[in-house]
Amino acid sequence: MYEKLLAIFKKYDIRYFFYIGGNDSMDTVAKLSEYTKNHDYEMRIIGVPKTIDNDLVVTDHTPGFGSAAKYIATTMAEIIRDCAVYTTKAVTIVEIMGRDAGWLTASAGISRIVNGIAPDLIYLPERNFNMEEFFEDVKAALEKHPNVVIAVSEGIHFADGTYVCEGIGVSSTDAFGHKQLSGTGKALEIAVKNEIGCKVRSVELNISQRCGAHIGSKTDITESVSIGRAAVKFASEGVTREMITVVRKSTKPYVTEISHSDVSKIANMIKFVPAEYINERGNDVTDECCEYLLPLIEGENYPSYVNGIPDFVVIK
Amino acid sequence: MYEKLLAIFKKYDIRYFFYIGGNDSMDTVAKLSEYTKNHDYEMRIIGVPKTIDNDLVVTDHTPGFGSAAKYIATTMAEIIRDCAVYTTKAVTIVEIMGRDAGWLTASAGISRIVNGIAPDLIYLPERNFNMEEFFEDVKAALEKHPNVVIAVSEGIHFADGTYVCEGIGVSSTDAFGHKQLSGTGKALEIAVKNEIGCKVRSVELNISQRCGAHIGSKTDITESVSIGRAAVKFASEGVTREMITVVRKSTKPYVTEISHSDVSKIANMIKFVPAEYINERGNDVTDECCEYLLPLIEGENYPSYVNGIPDFVVIK
Repeated sequence: MYEKLLAIFKKYDIRYFFYIGGNDSMDTVAKLSEYTKNHDYEMRIIGVPKTIDNDLVVTDHTPGFGSAAKYIATTMAEIIRDCAVYTTKAVTIVEIMGRDAGWLTASAGISRIVNGIAPDLIYLPERNFNMEEFFEDVKAALEKHPNVVIAVSEGIHFADGTYVCEGIGVSSTDAFGHKQLSGTGKALEIAVKNEIGCKVRSVELNISQRCGAHIGSKTDITESVSIGRAAVKFASEGVTREMITVVRKSTKPYVTEISHSDVSKIANMIKFVPAEYINERGNDVTDECCEYLLPLIEGENYPSYVNGIPDFVVIK
Repeated sequence: MYEKLLAIFKKYDIRYFFYIGGNDSMDTVAKLSEYTKNHDYEMRIIGVPKTIDNDLVVTDHTPGFGSAAKYIATTMAEIIRDCAVYTTKAVTIVEIMGRDAGWLTASAGISRIVNGIAPDLIYLPERNFNMEEFFEDVKAALEKHPNVVIAVSEGIHFADGTYVCEGIGVSSTDAFGHKQLSGTGKALEIAVKNEIGCKVRSVELNISQRCGAHIGSKTDITESVSIGRAAVKFASEGVTREMITVVRKSTKPYVTEISHSDVSKIANMIKFVPAEYINERGNDVTDECCEYLLPLIEGENYPSYVNGIPDFVVIK
């Protein structure tokens, strides 16, 4: 593949290559940089971060994450209100993307520090999941009010590494060899129904959370444009084999600057939600976590609409 | 229950009662009207329509539907674009609410008459579902392009009345004795995987489609306020045992007027998607259907935001 790429670069005299993506893409940037260097082809190769997972190391956060987090925080606020109208005991389990890192699921809790409303329980893949503790948590929450809303990451797993969703056997493998997970919410729905016997439903936010462009974060979109510009500027100044990064200088007020860092130290690494962002019991996020997340969802980026339908770009 | 209600009405001298809801609620309005009349208690009882299902007869449409339809049309536009980036053959099945009537699922097709982009196939519960024809449809669609997107109503059923979702045995019963359906998309996902063998995924829009207040239809919200006002006005003029209705005078331009109609002829009835709104093959909606739906999603009604989170009313 690299041989073929190099031939194309040479044929068209391509000297700048910007590769947009997450961990896997950064691995490609690192390998391609190595390959072109070893073949004495002078080229500037820049990794441009973009992943809703927010799991790239070194950078404070990744473009795309803020908008997905805003979608999740907004949808969660709506689901909690939807559930609140019923008086019979019910548990609603919302499954959120995140294979290894719980950033997206953590976003479900942001509104707690804004208006005091958030899911009763939040489980991230950074902590081993314990079914007995989970049942205790759900029962305790049901004592407080009839409608319990729970956010879970698709990637939660037991101490032995087994994914919770494997309990009902729904998994397949993607092009990079990662397990494609689904059914974590469904597995827990069945478990709670059997254990507690109340009404239980599971909601999987699914691909809508990664493509919900109608409710983008203004901060995210603005930064994404700046990062793209910076990539071009840095490359023109001679930077290569680096990924563009966001450095947070201050949270209140929110101040960032755009920099760059060795891509080989970013590729294939995962930035997990740190221990201090998760409560002791492992069933919620801390205020510190919400404070980190909050500026990333600030501002609304609406598309224009034609006849009530978003006027997205159409590529034919 | 009616005895208890009447006692409360008498105790507080309540003479006006507005009941907001769908078919079941209109049944309550009719029965309560009958009861209070038979007990010589003078009272004005008005049904105020509100259901995302759009399945009340007599009225052109129901408040709530336009906003849910806009959420569905918008989300479908986003899902189609999400799927379009992949080059390997894949089928995405989107399950949309609608137990008996296919109005919400039909909304997935609206954008065809706006920008030419819509799901490849749309199946409503108004037509019996045939698995062999479905496989033929999917195979034909995969011949045209690699990414096939399908919208299905949760309530689609075979000619013998069996729900498609019953194939995998997921159903329960709600407080009104209706079957609660889920898993239609999942059932079809498994069926297509077995028959065609390509990548298949199912997405259930679930409760987000009924509570997605962040992307409401301006037309819907404006009309809802007018309907509420009209209910009060009509009641003050002596109207009782009636439901408020929307009468469409013209589609281009969109002109409606608000009226009222005998609630006993509305209660427990279902307004289905008419035959001329579904194509001959039963796998799509017609332009006539989209033209009926389009004005209902016109305009955007955004909530205000505080720190990036919708500032919904909090009832404590």
